[in-house]
Amino acid sequence: MASAVLWRRGAAWLRSCRGNRREPPGVPRGRGCAGSRDVVPTCERYAVRRLPFARLEERDVAAFERLMPGRVVSAEEEVKPFNVDWLKSVRGCSQLVLKPQTTAEVSQVLRYCYERNLAVNPQGGNTGLVGGSVPVFDEIILSTALMNQVISFDKVSGILVCQAGCVLERLNEYLEEQGFIMPLDLGAKGSCHIGGNVATNAGGLRLLRYGSLRGTVLGLEVVLADGSALDCLMSLRKDNTGYDLKQLFIGSEGTLGVITAVSILCPQKPKAVNVAFLGCPSFAKVLETFTTCRAMLGEILSAYEFMDEKCMELVERHLKLSSPVADSPFYVLIETSGSNSTHDEEKLNNFLEQAMASGMVLWSLRERITEALTHEGYVYKYDISLPVAKLYNLVTDMRARLGQSAKNVVGYGHLGDGNLHLNITAESYSHSLLDAIEPFVYEWTARCSGSISAEHGLGFKKKQFIQYSKPREAVVLMQQFKAMLDPKGILNPYKTLPSAPERSTC
Amino acid sequence: MASAVLWRRGAAWLRSCRGNRREPPGVPRGRGCAGSRDVVPTCERYAVRRLPFARLEERDVAAFERLMPGRVVSAEEEVKPFNVDWLKSVRGCSQLVLKPQTTAEVSQVLRYCYERNLAVNPQGGNTGLVGGSVPVFDEIILSTALMNQVISFDKVSGILVCQAGCVLERLNEYLEEQGFIMPLDLGAKGSCHIGGNVATNAGGLRLLRYGSLRGTVLGLEVVLADGSALDCLMSLRKDNTGYDLKQLFIGSEGTLGVITAVSILCPQKPKAVNVAFLGCPSFAKVLETFTTCRAMLGEILSAYEFMDEKCMELVERHLKLSSPVADSPFYVLIETSGSNSTHDEEKLNNFLEQAMASGMVLWSLRERITEALTHEGYVYKYDISLPVAKLYNLVTDMRARLGQSAKNVVGYGHLGDGNLHLNITAESYSHSLLDAIEPFVYEWTARCSGSISAEHGLGFKKKQFIQYSKPREAVVLMQQFKAMLDPKGILNPYKTLPSAPERSTC
Repeated sequence: MASAVLWRRGAAWLRSCRGNRREPPGVPRGRGCAGSRDVVPTCERYAVRRLPFARLEERDVAAFERLMPGRVVSAEEEVKPFNVDWLKSVRGCSQLVLKPQTTAEVSQVLRYCYERNLAVNPQGGNTGLVGGSVPVFDEIILSTALMNQVISFDKVSGILVCQAGCVLERLNEYLEEQGFIMPLDLGAKGSCHIGGNVATNAGGLRLLRYGSLRGTVLGLEVVLADGSALDCLMSLRKDNTGYDLKQLFIGSEGTLGVITAVSILCPQKPKAVNVAFLGCPSFAKVLETFTTCRAMLGEILSAYEFMDEKCMELVERHLKLSSPVADSPFYVLIETSGSNSTHDEEKLNNFLEQAMASGMVLWSLRERITEALTHEGYVYKYDISLPVAKLYNLVTDMRARLGQSAKNVVGYGHLGDGNLHLNITAESYSHSLLDAIEPFVYEWTARCSGSISAEHGLGFKKKQFIQYSKPREAVVLMQQFKAMLDPKGILNPYKTLPSAPERSTC
Repeated sequence: MASAVLWRRGAAWLRSCRGNRREPPGVPRGRGCAGSRDVVPTCERYAVRRLPFARLEERDVAAFERLMPGRVVSAEEEVKPFNVDWLKSVRGCSQLVLKPQTTAEVSQVLRYCYERNLAVNPQGGNTGLVGGSVPVFDEIILSTALMNQVISFDKVSGILVCQAGCVLERLNEYLEEQGFIMPLDLGAKGSCHIGGNVATNAGGLRLLRYGSLRGTVLGLEVVLADGSALDCLMSLRKDNTGYDLKQLFIGSEGTLGVITAVSILCPQKPKAVNVAFLGCPSFAKVLETFTTCRAMLGEILSAYEFMDEKCMELVERHLKLSSPVADSPFYVLIETSGSNSTHDEEKLNNFLEQAMASGMVLWSLRERITEALTHEGYVYKYDISLPVAKLYNLVTDMRARLGQSAKNVVGYGHLGDGNLHLNITAESYSHSLLDAIEPFVYEWTARCSGSISAEHGLGFKKKQFIQYSKPREAVVLMQQFKAMLDPKGILNPYKTLPSAPERSTC
């Protein structure tokens, strides 16, 4: 099997590879992501109007100081990093960061803000990609940074209960010592908080194997807008007593309540991890291989990623990596995670033998596409869910549509999850190119019943596009839930939902 | 390995064993389940007051006949089976069954009923165990029996879209022909509808392996109380655009909307299925074995069930089955499902060798405990979720509490899911024995943060006990959701939620 490339290593190696898997910054309209200049305030760049919340006064700061002495941040320089997102694409003008340590303190803060009609921006690790984690105007930032305690871990059931501000990577390290892992993994794991992960229903790298947070999160503790605490922090795999309220808070991006604690089911740490790369002559073959792969690898398949030849060209050009085999139109990365290394290697070898027999060629490297893309100038990034059979058609159609006006139109992503990363590069930002891409990309996605945000959420930047993925009745119902749970609208305003019932956009 | 009992067979054998796995009937207060006499109407047996809904008139029947000619059932004998639950424990007095074929027809029916203030009881296969699937008074029965079409199945993604009235077993057969299975399996699969499964968030036999419906259901189409259709029928693994509304309908037992279509992620059909039975000297050993088992069997473990010696005694006495090994205080059933029979058998053998070395004894038969129990007279049945470490303490405590007043107090269940089936038998029904059991069993469960209904839901019979598993704030919020989505309360009234904010009961 001369052209086969197959790695078999421990989970530790894999983790180190994943350290730089984080998607590179998306690009806000009008400026590059790498700019070191001060970020233009959101309220200046975007046509957004401040809602009539109260304005922060000295007496408010004093009241918070009494509530949590020494954990009230108001010095401008100290507040600054909490106002700007990780992409440096949006910037709020908050004057105050609060760092509660307990649920009771979060309750007290929200009760106070609710009575005073002060808007609040809940913030975890501030690693969101759609502008959901920083203020738009002067919302008070409620940081979970000091709510970082593990409450309990049960080795028999694998159930972890912890505060919302625990950093994902710290939790995973804690669990690994006991033979378990977190059911999710992200490039941002070194700084993202589990509460933020749950609030944004983070997808990430383990979804194909362990499923979404909607299945693994067993319970939540949430503080509502008026300060009342809602205890749904069950640690049970099965509980059919009434409506599952916690689900409403998963993925609601801090607009319905502040998550203060999480109960989550953690899988055993896999004993064997293998990775392989393959070349495929067509996207149809990528799909066919996925089907074969699932049948032969079954329960140990933990990732099935794909990329096109354009991605490979960029990786070769900018990162000086060379292909060990002849060029192919498409490439696939396969990862397995199992409990028995001999069994897993045998399964993967059997699969590869069959894959080779049917004309596919092994090859390498998916990891650094995003890095290579940033060398190409300006990058327009889209994160789309589509039925897998149609997944690549969007890239082909976009390429045909844009012709010479784009430098590159490339596609890659988590095929196993039906998640495409569509990237378009040009020498520099151009409003006319953007107009050629949008709303075409959203309309195309809507026609295929896809999702315009697979895993990043809507936040501030995409909320006006929700109607491309959700019918009007659903949006109206969401607005009713928001109005019921947060009648004054103080929680993470200007995010997730259009502020008034939208006229149809698609 | 003389005392080892290990089966290795195809899935077909396993299915045939599972045909009689259905829990035997629970016993309503005051009468045995096996009675062939007419069931006492619910409104006579229970202290329940009819709400001021309109009463059915001739003109209503005529209107429905115009909507769906020939699919309106009003003859008393034909309506009768729709009024009585599978356990023959509750009985409604409905005069009308409607059998729509399309979502549009469901919309028209509900719009009509909403305007007329007529109460509606949505009904799938009528296999519920808590009185949620039949009317309490004269609610119109809206049956999904004729909504039984598969809409689509995508072999690449494994996503099935179908109408709500599809019978679970038919769906599984349809999928098996294409190398897939449904992610859930129940004893009632021959008659239960997938819409009813989703509406009750059914657990069943595959939960340990494939997770709950909250992760596998990808989309729902729902008709709300006022007749408006809500299309959340996405077929995407990832979609973070706004609140996940479908979750609210999963497990809401038909009280928030009528599910008309389901999109669900289906796993590959396992190629190898193995079953083994073990004896354990203590419940602590059952737990220790579970930990070892998960580590060694990992991804192929699909069931971990336990039973105590009392269960075995009953099986031996009533079913003339004999134990192939010496008696043990506890027994464990382990099932594996994987993609490679050689690998799976090897894993199981490795595990069994280690299990034997640490002093456990293999043994057989969990399947027929429930059948044996019905030979003992009157059975009080409870379906409880608990932290696994405390799971058996409830049985021990109950046994000590009841002493000679109970004939048997036995425990068994899905330990892998933290789900205990507690069964208490006596010669005949006794109100004083019931008073000794309840509310003690609920109070005990609440003290351990357990759930008083692991998988059966609350329905009509358990709704007054919800506060043992949910805090008052959560119940109030559920009532607000109900009021928002169904302001007239016409959908499955008298079910799931207490009708007014409850005074604290625990």
